[in-house]
Amino acid sequence: MKLKNYSISLMIACFSAGPILAQFEAPNTPPEKSPMPMKPEMTEIWEPEVIVVSPAEVLGDAPSDAIILFDGSNLDQWVSQKDTEQPAPWKLVAGEFFEVVPNAGGIQTKMKFGDCQLHIEFSAPDKVEFSGQGRGNSGIFFQNRYELQVLDSYQNRTYRNGQAGSIYKDHAPLVNAMKPPLEWNTYDVIYTAPRFKENGELHEPARITVLHNGVLVQNNTTINGLTLYIGLHQYTEAHEEDVISLQDHGTKAQYRNIWIRRL
Amino acid sequence: MKLKNYSISLMIACFSAGPILAQFEAPNTPPEKSPMPMKPEMTEIWEPEVIVVSPAEVLGDAPSDAIILFDGSNLDQWVSQKDTEQPAPWKLVAGEFFEVVPNAGGIQTKMKFGDCQLHIEFSAPDKVEFSGQGRGNSGIFFQNRYELQVLDSYQNRTYRNGQAGSIYKDHAPLVNAMKPPLEWNTYDVIYTAPRFKENGELHEPARITVLHNGVLVQNNTTINGLTLYIGLHQYTEAHEEDVISLQDHGTKAQYRNIWIRRL
Amino acid sequence: MKLKNYSISLMIACFSAGPILAQFEAPNTPPEKSPMPMKPEMTEIWEPEVIVVSPAEVLGDAPSDAIILFDGSNLDQWVSQKDTEQPAPWKLVAGEFFEVVPNAGGIQTKMKFGDCQLHIEFSAPDKVEFSGQGRGNSGIFFQNRYELQVLDSYQNRTYRNGQAGSIYKDHAPLVNAMKPPLEWNTYDVIYTAPRFKENGELHEPARITVLHNGVLVQNNTTINGLTLYIGLHQYTEAHEEDVISLQDHGTKAQYRNIWIRRL
Amino acid sequence: MKLKNYSISLMIACFSAGPILAQFEAPNTPPEKSPMPMKPEMTEIWEPEVIVVSPAEVLGDAPSDAIILFDGSNLDQWVSQKDTEQPAPWKLVAGEFFEVVPNAGGIQTKMKFGDCQLHIEFSAPDKVEFSGQGRGNSGIFFQNRYELQVLDSYQNRTYRNGQAGSIYKDHAPLVNAMKPPLEWNTYDVIYTAPRFKENGELHEPARITVLHNGVLVQNNTTINGLTLYIGLHQYTEAHEEDVISLQDHGTKAQYRNIWIRRL
Repeated sequence: MKLKNYSISLMIACFSAGPILAQFEAPNTPPEKSPMPMKPEMTEIWEPEVIVVSPAEVLGDAPSDAIILFDGSNLDQWVSQKDTEQPAPWKLVAGEFFEVVPNAGGIQTKMKFGDCQLHIEFSAPDKVEFSGQGRGNSGIFFQNRYELQVLDSYQNRTYRNGQAGSIYKDHAPLVNAMKPPLEWNTYDVIYTAPRFKENGELHEPARITVLHNGVLVQNNTTINGLTLYIGLHQYTEAHEEDVISLQDHGTKAQYRNIWIRRL
Repeated sequence: MKLKNYSISLMIACFSAGPILAQFEAPNTPPEKSPMPMKPEMTEIWEPEVIVVSPAEVLGDAPSDAIILFDGSNLDQWVSQKDTEQPAPWKLVAGEFFEVVPNAGGIQTKMKFGDCQLHIEFSAPDKVEFSGQGRGNSGIFFQNRYELQVLDSYQNRTYRNGQAGSIYKDHAPLVNAMKPPLEWNTYDVIYTAPRFKENGELHEPARITVLHNGVLVQNNTTINGLTLYIGLHQYTEAHEEDVISLQDHGTKAQYRNIWIRRL
Repeated sequence: MKLKNYSISLMIACFSAGPILAQFEAPNTPPEKSPMPMKPEMTEIWEPEVIVVSPAEVLGDAPSDAIILFDGSNLDQWVSQKDTEQPAPWKLVAGEFFEVVPNAGGIQTKMKFGDCQLHIEFSAPDKVEFSGQGRGNSGIFFQNRYELQVLDSYQNRTYRNGQAGSIYKDHAPLVNAMKPPLEWNTYDVIYTAPRFKENGELHEPARITVLHNGVLVQNNTTINGLTLYIGLHQYTEAHEEDVISLQDHGTKAQYRNIWIRRL
Repeated sequence: MKLKNYSISLMIACFSAGPILAQFEAPNTPPEKSPMPMKPEMTEIWEPEVIVVSPAEVLGDAPSDAIILFDGSNLDQWVSQKDTEQPAPWKLVAGEFFEVVPNAGGIQTKMKFGDCQLHIEFSAPDKVEFSGQGRGNSGIFFQNRYELQVLDSYQNRTYRNGQAGSIYKDHAPLVNAMKPPLEWNTYDVIYTAPRFKENGELHEPARITVLHNGVLVQNNTTINGLTLYIGLHQYTEAHEEDVISLQDHGTKAQYRNIWIRRL
């Protein structure tokens, strides 16, 4: 952790070739007090100083070290998934939010991310049409692969591992904390990317913690693999950091106030 | 997970005494497509329906299933640590917050908790006296044993594993997200209690995730044991659910808006 | 961990109501050496003394604290799965091994186990008949639910998550370390039972490490749920310690030298 | 895991821009059977074929894919720690074992390793001199940093986190499975290297499982950091694969039959 090397000098004994005489004479019965009493300062670690981050005034707003992915002004941090040379083909309601344009295709960040803390807000469409998966369906794909479902799950039953707050077709949310259509929902996400070995095999699966409107819905959940609409989820290929993408599932949904911190 | 027993009938083959003839004839070369293609509905799990929780309108306020530990009106959920038959000896500023009364002793909840999501707000005292550990020092003890430090860490250096957001003398926070004195700080905590074996040995240490003013400061951190001012932290005894306690460290600190959800 | 309470007295400061004056005067700049240097004895923990276990002379044989489930002499530790009042209906070759009697039904231990270290030896039948899952198919079910596959996987291809060393239809083995028919294979297993919450929900899935003939084939693998021949594996009900069962899959297989240690 | 890309085609729906009409018409009440029944072959994964490894005839001997670090013939895989250009300055008893030459300095492998399965055998010296840490003291350092203690712990009490099978001054062994002096002990180790972030911070600590003479003494134990004779163990710097080293602690100890498999 790039701690200063204050401790290296303490190691000498470990790698020392010579006998440590004090040890030879050590009793093999426990001393009266075991372990030897310490002083308070011995467990105080000062270096390195912890980095200062200025939090937002209001909970949910971006702290000083966040990368702003959308603050209402423009979609400059996003491109089209169909053609990543093209701007994001979704509708900007300036100063407020942006909206999925059904069938225009998904969008993705220009930047790539691995481990991160993401804040994102979304709302279901005003007009309540259809039901189940047909209402306000979109999704947030971490590393362009692992989907945190976005859906209008307010009084709208569907399969438990496909509703808002689920890792799609992998893990149902702990509870359904959805707000009614037109109200803004928040996701606060702590995402840990999967790790792979040099030979391409999985070392450690991805994990995710999600607060939906401040309520815990995923608690350090293990993600079982690539999100699939059909079939078993598995890790089928090693990969590095990658973009975050938002799904066009053919229905309306709105997004606003998106920021991210690298972890 | 108390899922309905839809799947038990599928097990028969596993425990069946008889041969499963289809298997005997199975080729030992892979079929052309492997595994056999599935249908989307095969990974849709409907039961049991996910429980609905109404989130608060404002991020940080209590959802419908939370136990309110303090909403400004009274200290009825708390007792004195010196004498648990006595009411909490701290100062209530009705409708707003309560305040540590230095040297009156700590307070603790009447109820006991294990795994939980806790929201709590605190502020450092108005008058900036002393420095380091002497300024606005208090603490939140999960299961009356494991301390999430409360301190005025705004422009007030101390040892990294003793500042606000630290697991005291165990883990420094990832960043210092402290607000200035008199401003309210929030902690959103996801706490997983340690598990013990029947013989009293530790099975699994406690883990904690903490957002300080919405900024991640502990990321599923493993707690190494009982918080000690002096010496190495260890798990020295098995225990069950226990109270949450707030420390009187001889300095002022204020608390408000405290709610908890059992996980 | 039932350590003696030597450390409790050290805690006083944590819960003390009074100010700790030394701290008030503490500088808020780091001391020259941080943390304060310790002495070697301060990290030496003597109590409680570690329990002595006499290992076997030969690797693979039972240590002094093992429960012997089969040593060649009888099947007294096992009963019939069809009728647990009845003795195990498999064939004993006294002084050597026992053998699955195809279609007589599985057998299970009289005792129940949770976390454990299990050693078990098995061999495929002499006569190489059939292929794939039809050759020497049996299985070891931990807590009567989670199957470590037993199969003749020597030059006998089948699906990767169904061969010897697999967690059946859950995880393929890391490598195929199978010996030829009639030679004895060993499994050395470290099994950690799943934990459930009081409300019946899963707290932590089961995990398993397996050495097959001394070669690592499962490395602290997470078991995804109840072993099923058909469908997705899930944890569908909370449960306690349970028997270990051996499967009758309609084909021959031999077992010997079975011992277990509670962890 | 470099599985063939059979599943990629199944993803289309996920990223499809167009509506999936079938979903729009999906009922929002659960179907009678949920999830839809599957066929056995749907959870059978055939590709890629699991790699074959030939196990040793005798438990404890090297399988076909192991790197032999010592088979009795020479010390060619090892060099001096004092001067890595020089051969290992320890004594070879050809065809049998090698022996620490007290005060000649430690030795280390020429090759570097990360995650691995290691088998190593050791014995305490014939002459029982001294006591506690003074008897047969050596050690195995994974990545040249994290020590699995080697000591004559047969009827020789010392601090619990410093005896044979301990992670030195970090974790005591679960039991003491030591054989008497002159008898050969085995360690079978499954070691998972720590992972670091690109910025040098710790991502995941090292973990270790150890069987001592076939008896579990470390069960996927988390290693808390660099092994130190004095002071708290921490991860102070990011590092890659590194050598395995054997400690010269000024006392005699013998080693034989050392092999390793990369994981």
